Amino acid sequence: MAKLYVIKIGGNIIDDEATLSSFLKDFAAIEEKKILVHGGGKMATRLAEKLGVQQQVIDGRRITDAETLKIVTMVYAGFINKNIVAALQANQCNAMGLCGADGDTILAHKRKHPVLDYGYVGDVDAINTDLIDSLLVKNIAVVFAPITHDQQGQLLNTNADTIAQEIAKGMSDLYEVELIYSFEKSGVLLDANDDTTVIHELNPSYYQELKAKNKIFAGMLPKLDNAFAALKSGVSKVIIGKAEDLAELVKGHTGTSIIND
Amino acid sequence: MAKLYVIKIGGNIIDDEATLSSFLKDFAAIEEKKILVHGGGKMATRLAEKLGVQQQVIDGRRITDAETLKIVTMVYAGFINKNIVAALQANQCNAMGLCGADGDTILAHKRKHPVLDYGYVGDVDAINTDLIDSLLVKNIAVVFAPITHDQQGQLLNTNADTIAQEIAKGMSDLYEVELIYSFEKSGVLLDANDDTTVIHELNPSYYQELKAKNKIFAGMLPKLDNAFAALKSGVSKVIIGKAEDLAELVKGHTGTSIIND
Repeated sequence: MAKLYVIKIGGNIIDDEATLSSFLKDFAAIEEKKILVHGGGKMATRLAEKLGVQQQVIDGRRITDAETLKIVTMVYAGFINKNIVAALQANQCNAMGLCGADGDTILAHKRKHPVLDYGYVGDVDAINTDLIDSLLVKNIAVVFAPITHDQQGQLLNTNADTIAQEIAKGMSDLYEVELIYSFEKSGVLLDANDDTTVIHELNPSYYQELKAKNKIFAGMLPKLDNAFAALKSGVSKVIIGKAEDLAELVKGHTGTSIIND
Repeated sequence: MAKLYVIKIGGNIIDDEATLSSFLKDFAAIEEKKILVHGGGKMATRLAEKLGVQQQVIDGRRITDAETLKIVTMVYAGFINKNIVAALQANQCNAMGLCGADGDTILAHKRKHPVLDYGYVGDVDAINTDLIDSLLVKNIAVVFAPITHDQQGQLLNTNADTIAQEIAKGMSDLYEVELIYSFEKSGVLLDANDDTTVIHELNPSYYQELKAKNKIFAGMLPKLDNAFAALKSGVSKVIIGKAEDLAELVKGHTGTSIIND
């Protein structure tokens, strides 16, 4: 099977113009098939502040009321997505920016929760792998904004890590998929404040051990749970590492490799 | 050759939720291949006002400074484009929303003008007809926001009428193209205030005659110049009419037909 990289880029990278520009240069240089999933960054929060739209965050998840959905649709699927695509084109990488409504690529449903109303937040049901593949075979890099839809006309704000994981899982029927979570740290760290304490390999038993000792930074837990779930569903490799090191991450020379036991 | 409809929808329709919804239902029902090009509407102007970004309009064209480009990218390529796509999906019409940077579909250059700096405004150089056609053959309706790029990483605000015309011209090598400009009036009117004075057929000599008599509303002139230019470049038919009448416009039963002498 041909190789496919599914690469998630975190919001802190998107907020830093120089880092983003260098990351996109490295991304454009990847010769294999590739998909980029981007998060949101602080621009949506800043725009909400300027517009006087109150933001509520519970357990690290933004509560998405109707006004907030408007803002994230504009910022994620509009400003960030289109500027990334234009930058990739300038790096001679043909790219197409989509949200999950486009081509019905990511079908989701509004999250149901017994107590909490997350608002217009989507949980992913299905990936249209045929359509995504029809773009990849034309050597188009597909760039996803973290907005999905429910086929009833409703757009939904959706976690970008989850989208990356679901796309990676879905595409593993067609490709040998490597899923890369790139962000501002060098990988999964034993000491969250020391970038030299990267764990080079993490398997489920070691992960359980570190969790029991509270050695894993809370913000990493959903990312790692996603990573292990992806491995179980056919993704061949998951790597977590620094966006600036993308060229090396792709080669498997740096970052944290998430592996099975 | 198979038939292709390239349909432009004006900003006033986008601003009216009920009319837009009914228009999209009619658009979804068109059985032939179809492309939708949408304008902006008042949302960008309102957002600019809220954010304190001064808007300057000269000869009906918005001067697009860097902050205005951000706003139109968010509103046109983000909010409007994605909501139209989601609505079409809800009407069982598979659709994909693009700007000109996506798949390098619309290449443009920043407008050069001897006196006036229009800012980040683009004039179209080329349409990637192969890529657009590869979506159409999958029965995907392509929905264009009026934002293009210059292949150097710069997004550009571009007139939606012009985009519709350039796409219609480009696609005429592959399809029998019918270009429909749909807006809030019933067609080209002899009396701008009387919707019953629709001109049913307009050829170049009648157009010159009406222009000489100042019978054509100034706002219609660029639209009509575009329409005649499109006919000369291979487009088989141009129709101007009311968005609410789309189902009838498509059949050629209403609106103004622009024809050669």
